[in-house]
Amino acid sequence: MALRFALVIEPAASDDPRTDFDDTFRAIDPSAPALSVGELSTQRGDGIFESIGVVDGHPQETQAHLERLAHSAAICDLPAPHLEQWRRAVEIAATHAPQRGEGVVKLILSRGVEHGPAPTAWATAAAAADNTVAREQGIRVVTLDRGYGIDTPAKAPWLLLGAKTLSYAVNMAAIREAHRRGADDAVFVTSDGFVLEAPTASLIVRIDGRFVTPAPNGGILHGTTQLSLFAHLASEGFETGYATLPTRSLKDADAAWLVSSVRLAAPITAIDGMDVPVDAGLTASINRYLLSPRD
Amino acid sequence: MALRFALVIEPAASDDPRTDFDDTFRAIDPSAPALSVGELSTQRGDGIFESIGVVDGHPQETQAHLERLAHSAAICDLPAPHLEQWRRAVEIAATHAPQRGEGVVKLILSRGVEHGPAPTAWATAAAAADNTVAREQGIRVVTLDRGYGIDTPAKAPWLLLGAKTLSYAVNMAAIREAHRRGADDAVFVTSDGFVLEAPTASLIVRIDGRFVTPAPNGGILHGTTQLSLFAHLASEGFETGYATLPTRSLKDADAAWLVSSVRLAAPITAIDGMDVPVDAGLTASINRYLLSPRD
Repeated sequence: MALRFALVIEPAASDDPRTDFDDTFRAIDPSAPALSVGELSTQRGDGIFESIGVVDGHPQETQAHLERLAHSAAICDLPAPHLEQWRRAVEIAATHAPQRGEGVVKLILSRGVEHGPAPTAWATAAAAADNTVAREQGIRVVTLDRGYGIDTPAKAPWLLLGAKTLSYAVNMAAIREAHRRGADDAVFVTSDGFVLEAPTASLIVRIDGRFVTPAPNGGILHGTTQLSLFAHLASEGFETGYATLPTRSLKDADAAWLVSSVRLAAPITAIDGMDVPVDAGLTASINRYLLSPRD
Repeated sequence: MALRFALVIEPAASDDPRTDFDDTFRAIDPSAPALSVGELSTQRGDGIFESIGVVDGHPQETQAHLERLAHSAAICDLPAPHLEQWRRAVEIAATHAPQRGEGVVKLILSRGVEHGPAPTAWATAAAAADNTVAREQGIRVVTLDRGYGIDTPAKAPWLLLGAKTLSYAVNMAAIREAHRRGADDAVFVTSDGFVLEAPTASLIVRIDGRFVTPAPNGGILHGTTQLSLFAHLASEGFETGYATLPTRSLKDADAAWLVSSVRLAAPITAIDGMDVPVDAGLTASINRYLLSPRD
């Protein structure tokens, strides 16, 4: 959806003692030229981001997103973001998302202009796409090799595998490959046969009544929606857990979902052409939870 | 170095019959805002690029760079670039690089603005950094695991490993890791022990008098400087060749270089702390060749 709002942010040092950051923000026309061609975000995909769901004007799970932004910054040797500054940017941007229905606030922290003095940053707000079909009718996925082994991320932190960087060309290519194969989305697996995540979502499977997601051991993002949903499911008495999940175990799933901040829970109807049962009642209940105001 | 010039390009279809593309170009102030925050280059690192060396105003190896741009576009499902349009953009940009000494022209083709109608593109010109020290005194490198096996690129084209994409966060992180280890640059190797390339350069080693570079089998870029240099070396009577090069074979090198379009040939003085002999005379001769006008 077209952007409704953009806010250029002058990043504050993480120990800046100010409590009011409004003079570090500058609202701009989101379709107008705003970034120079020397931006390292655009030249090198060198920066990090977060996408925050907004429901009826309320930004969801802001704290978890800000903590992940800080985690990504640390992995990428970017200056630590001042979380109160970013929290305020989220608040402002969310007032420009739809105040009824669903929206999305996106945060971007770039390494800045090449040879420039400082990082650059901005936030945007937009209406969300209509994800009703994915939530209600489900999605077909294919597994795609992410190219590395399950033990690679821990051994090679320069691969930035646990950071949400702007270098997402591979994630976008994987979704195009899924479409070429007649599916809606992809699930990355390691070359030695373990499940990772989707290009823009976390995977949750239910096996023998237990909700399981791949352990975020450095190779995948820790999904904010997955975290929130696991807390909810646990409070409802369900068993949840993290596991090193072999790809072959997907055939044992009696339900599976991709969950993310904007599409929320999309039930998986088929993996690599093999049908997966859909628990429509539970899925509807999960999405009701995910659409309720959450901090 | 600060950009001296930027040219926004309205990409023509590859079969556009025009011969004059000058009205598809718009020169802009390179430090002024030019790109909207909705740009997929900046949001997703979703685009491709080329960096072309310019010597005394002459863009080097333009045709090879344009062919690689087209190759990257095909891998990334981007519209095929109109090579004559891009060639003209290179010509124009090169007139804004230093006309004495060294410069760089950079080409960028982005997937465009999210939900927008078309790709966006631009070219920039700048003076080159002074690379004399690297060329004359050499560089120390460390090998870093690229995380995948030698046979992965052929099996998983969605990893875009042969494309020069804007998603270069990992390449930049590898250079930072090399600096942390007290080296100047990195050489990526596969997790199963084969040599690939540097984050922004090709590796050439001389073993038993033969010049060898890792075979560009889909997992690495085919270096334009390496290509040109091999043709030159062959014309001088040297033996050159492509090989699947085990990492352990690096210890047999009696000389080694990283070669790229702007830094040109930087002799390697040490790999992982192990000294590598430097052939200073040959290196000087190679850089004289690389600084001569080449098409």
